[in-house]
Amino acid sequence: MRLPMSPYAEIPRPVEQAIDVLAQFARVTELWSPKVIAQVNDQYVKVARLLGEMPWHHHAGEDELFWVLRGRLRLEFRDHVVELEPGECCVVPRGVEHHPVCAEECWIVLIETVTTRHTGNLTTPQTRSIEEQLS
Amino acid sequence: MRLPMSPYAEIPRPVEQAIDVLAQFARVTELWSPKVIAQVNDQYVKVARLLGEMPWHHHAGEDELFWVLRGRLRLEFRDHVVELEPGECCVVPRGVEHHPVCAEECWIVLIETVTTRHTGNLTTPQTRSIEEQLS
Repeated sequence: MRLPMSPYAEIPRPVEQAIDVLAQFARVTELWSPKVIAQVNDQYVKVARLLGEMPWHHHAGEDELFWVLRGRLRLEFRDHVVELEPGECCVVPRGVEHHPVCAEECWIVLIETVTTRHTGNLTTPQTRSIEEQLS
Repeated sequence: MRLPMSPYAEIPRPVEQAIDVLAQFARVTELWSPKVIAQVNDQYVKVARLLGEMPWHHHAGEDELFWVLRGRLRLEFRDHVVELEPGECCVVPRGVEHHPVCAEECWIVLIETVTTRHTGNLTTPQTRSIEEQLS
C-alpha cells in the first residue's frame, strides 16, 4: 500500500485502500472541527459535524464543496439561502461570503484545497489547524 | 445565482444551489459514461454507472477518487485488490495502474482533475469527451 506524504505534515494519507466515510466520523470528537479522510490531487476530502453556526466568512481564492450525509445544513448567502438535505451538495465559489447554520446536528463531507483555512478569512475559536484536521 | 464557466466548454457549472447527487444519475443513460455534476477548484465531481469492467489503465499525472453509492466496485491493482461497498471510497494515485470491475451495477461518484481523461492512457469505446461528460 502506498502512502504519499501530505504537503503539510508528515502524516500519510491512505491510498489504494477502502475508506469507510461514515466510520471516519469516529475521529470527529468536536463540532466544527474537520478531519481529513483523503487527498485527491490538491484537494482534501474532510468530514465534520456541525451544530449551531459559523460566522460569516469567505475563502479568497478557493472554492469549497459541502455535501450533507446526515441532518440538514442551511447555507446563507448575502442574497439567498440554500437548504441542504442528506444526499445534497453545494459549491461555495471563491470569494463568496457564506454563513453555515445548523439547527440540528449535521454530518458533512467537505472538499477544499489543501491550503484552505476552513474558517476562511476569520480566526475564531472554531478555527483548527491543518495539523489538527489531519490528526 | 452565479454560474462560473467551465474551462472546457461554455457550459456553466452550478454553484450556490443544492445539487441532489442521486438525482443527477438521471443524466446517466450509458454505462461507464461519467457526467459532471459540480466543479470545486480544479476538480470535477462526476457520477457514473458501472457494470462489467474497464481495461487496465492509469492516469499519468492525476489522482482519482472513487466513491461507491450503490452496488459494489472491485478495484484491482497489480499487487492487491480493493473491494468497495456503498459508503466507501478509495484514492487511486497518479501513475498507478488499476482495473475497475463490477459484477453488479455500481453507482459511483468520481473526483478527478478537470483535465483527467476518465479512461486514462487508453482510448477505448468507453472513452467519453469532457464535452460529453458535461452534457
